[in-house]
Amino acid sequence: MARGELTLATGKRLEMIDLTDRLQQAAGSIDEGVLHVYNPHTTAGLIINEGADPDVQRDILGALARMVPADYPYRHREGNSPAHLMTALTGSSVTVFIHQGRLQLGTWQRIFFCEFDGPRSRRIWWKILAG
Amino acid sequence: MARGELTLATGKRLEMIDLTDRLQQAAGSIDEGVLHVYNPHTTAGLIINEGADPDVQRDILGALARMVPADYPYRHREGNSPAHLMTALTGSSVTVFIHQGRLQLGTWQRIFFCEFDGPRSRRIWWKILAG
Amino acid sequence: MARGELTLATGKRLEMIDLTDRLQQAAGSIDEGVLHVYNPHTTAGLIINEGADPDVQRDILGALARMVPADYPYRHREGNSPAHLMTALTGSSVTVFIHQGRLQLGTWQRIFFCEFDGPRSRRIWWKILAG
Repeated sequence: MARGELTLATGKRLEMIDLTDRLQQAAGSIDEGVLHVYNPHTTAGLIINEGADPDVQRDILGALARMVPADYPYRHREGNSPAHLMTALTGSSVTVFIHQGRLQLGTWQRIFFCEFDGPRSRRIWWKILAG
Repeated sequence: MARGELTLATGKRLEMIDLTDRLQQAAGSIDEGVLHVYNPHTTAGLIINEGADPDVQRDILGALARMVPADYPYRHREGNSPAHLMTALTGSSVTVFIHQGRLQLGTWQRIFFCEFDGPRSRRIWWKILAG
Repeated sequence: MARGELTLATGKRLEMIDLTDRLQQAAGSIDEGVLHVYNPHTTAGLIINEGADPDVQRDILGALARMVPADYPYRHREGNSPAHLMTALTGSSVTVFIHQGRLQLGTWQRIFFCEFDGPRSRRIWWKILAG
């Protein structure tokens, strides 16, 4: 069993931050297992997607923000209901396999924290089950 | 290994029902581990999101229903294809860590069953892996 | 610990391919556990949904494609940003319980690979944790 926390600071309202290297460091102590990454926030998410071209991150965030209704009569007083919906859509955790101490990602995949209501101080929890 | 089932009855077509207390009870027998919660239905989902202000649940459900196309030429005869898409978008399981017998949730997080085609009798399966 | 890879070839731009029987075969060697299925691609997804009526798959893919903005000023040069967003929305892995050597699926549930940018050669990784 291995577990830990990462802290990060986001700088924009919508932002994807690549956590892959920090999570690889966490996973390095385990030979074979499953890494679960958990987001304890209700206006942020976790996404595994392409990291090579930054325009993919920009397009994902921009199109997602356009897809979520802007004209809906939201009642939540904080005014960030679209961010709550984006969290519901992208999910609160991701799961990645570990083989010989390496995260098993596809060629283009990176693990991103997704800020939907920044800028804020955020944290991420991870846990590894060996096997 | 610990596993179980929760049953619930939904009362509306769209509804979020807080399962956190019942799942905490299930998790209480485990010191350290990972709780997986699984939804065996194809027109319902599981979401981790804010529980403090009920307007957040209302806004998530309302905006999600508006986001899914109403005017698409759906062919499925039961007429509930939008509910199937909502299930695909929110996902069929959630994963939460357990530490010292407590579910590790963020300050505002609760675990919700999401009814997209109610009212119905529903059930949820859970399983805990120690570690 | 059991792990493996499935390969598949998709034939259309948008397509859902039922992987349930091949995953059941993989799970058969384990009595009790958790199956994680992982998609290493950034323009494809995994969805658990109804398999009985093929119109459900058609409706999910069609409505999802309509929901993702077509008129957004995407910048990613490959022109497949909508597929990247669909991957972010549907997620990169699914989790299913195994009991007495059988995948624990709901009555109507099947596990689908979702192609969002085909046709292509694709692969899926799976891993089982006993417990």
